[in-house]
Amino acid sequence: MAYPGFGAYGGYSGQMPGMQMTMGQPMPGAVPNMPHGGYSGYSAYSGTYSAAADPMWTYFTAIAGQDGEVDAEELQRCLTQSGISGTYSPFSLETCRIMISMMDRDYTGKMGFNEFKELWAALNAWKQNFMMIDQDRSGTVELHELSQVIAAMGYRLSPQTLIAIVKRYSKNGKIFFDDYVACCVKLRALTDFFRRRDNMQQGYVNFVYDDFLQCTMAI
Amino acid sequence: MAYPGFGAYGGYSGQMPGMQMTMGQPMPGAVPNMPHGGYSGYSAYSGTYSAAADPMWTYFTAIAGQDGEVDAEELQRCLTQSGISGTYSPFSLETCRIMISMMDRDYTGKMGFNEFKELWAALNAWKQNFMMIDQDRSGTVELHELSQVIAAMGYRLSPQTLIAIVKRYSKNGKIFFDDYVACCVKLRALTDFFRRRDNMQQGYVNFVYDDFLQCTMAI
Repeated sequence: MAYPGFGAYGGYSGQMPGMQMTMGQPMPGAVPNMPHGGYSGYSAYSGTYSAAADPMWTYFTAIAGQDGEVDAEELQRCLTQSGISGTYSPFSLETCRIMISMMDRDYTGKMGFNEFKELWAALNAWKQNFMMIDQDRSGTVELHELSQVIAAMGYRLSPQTLIAIVKRYSKNGKIFFDDYVACCVKLRALTDFFRRRDNMQQGYVNFVYDDFLQCTMAI
Repeated sequence: MAYPGFGAYGGYSGQMPGMQMTMGQPMPGAVPNMPHGGYSGYSAYSGTYSAAADPMWTYFTAIAGQDGEVDAEELQRCLTQSGISGTYSPFSLETCRIMISMMDRDYTGKMGFNEFKELWAALNAWKQNFMMIDQDRSGTVELHELSQVIAAMGYRLSPQTLIAIVKRYSKNGKIFFDDYVACCVKLRALTDFFRRRDNMQQGYVNFVYDDFLQCTMAI
């Protein structure tokens, strides 16, 4: 099912924005055609799936401890040890906090193994996108390049909104990997909040003040 | 003019939430009765006011340089050198970025002197609120204490939203000064975004997707 257009700025694409480049081939690690509404597509982990058989399970539980969940500090340690950032700087605590918020539907401030795996797939896809534009591995990309990536991920935004976003996540006119990921996480989470409330899928939502703050303050 | 109630969770108070405690006396440095709609009330700096006569002007311009504005890195240096954090840790770059965003109506990513003065007043008020609950100067406050401060500042939020907010800004079950200020800045900025779009002042706003992201991604 296609998600209808969002006014003058185009529409959501069939897949989840932020998970896959719409031009060219799917990125390694991307999750194409994730169902609308966001995070319910745990097909790989349902049915006969056993978490204990997953090589990442041992690794995750060593950091998660007895409660089987990680908070932002633990997630930061987890991601740093995993080496997912490669040659880029490790993720800041702030970025890890918004990663937790993106997945945290029950407001516990923590993330379980299924959510961790889902985050892992998204991070790998975003990293591939970043590396594709940061070909000299300088660790930064230009503002207009981030705009292009956001558009290519399927977000249809006005030029003014794109400018506001890329400026917010830049330092000295450059976008660093950590800030780029923070931007991707927020775009995905806020779009998901919005879409879940857009019952008619028409591109606008009537927000009550309390719900608006609940959505936006956590991200 | 009072701002009408926001559904079941009460109303905005007459003053700008986040600028003044509604119980007890106004805090030193607070700006009571700021006009609705946000940041247009520069009464202290209009008319015959001369910025050059302000003792903070020399100080600000030394860091702002020729363009007369500060970006997030310069603001961080400015605030650290000013000693406004007192015995608390200096503000993180991330918090300085959202301070800039709160004031940045033209999306330049920078802050002029008038905005800096306005921020300064807000920071002093928020700091006084924090110190009132952090009486042992441990640098942290409890989650339920932040909830009380948010309510006392005039925000009428559901218990669920309050819980989501305080968890988001906590570390190991405590709220640090830097995170508390980040929370205050976001609450004020997002409330202001919302209020400016709430033409009928009824507590709900019909957001178009692009505008929703422009509001919320920058904060």
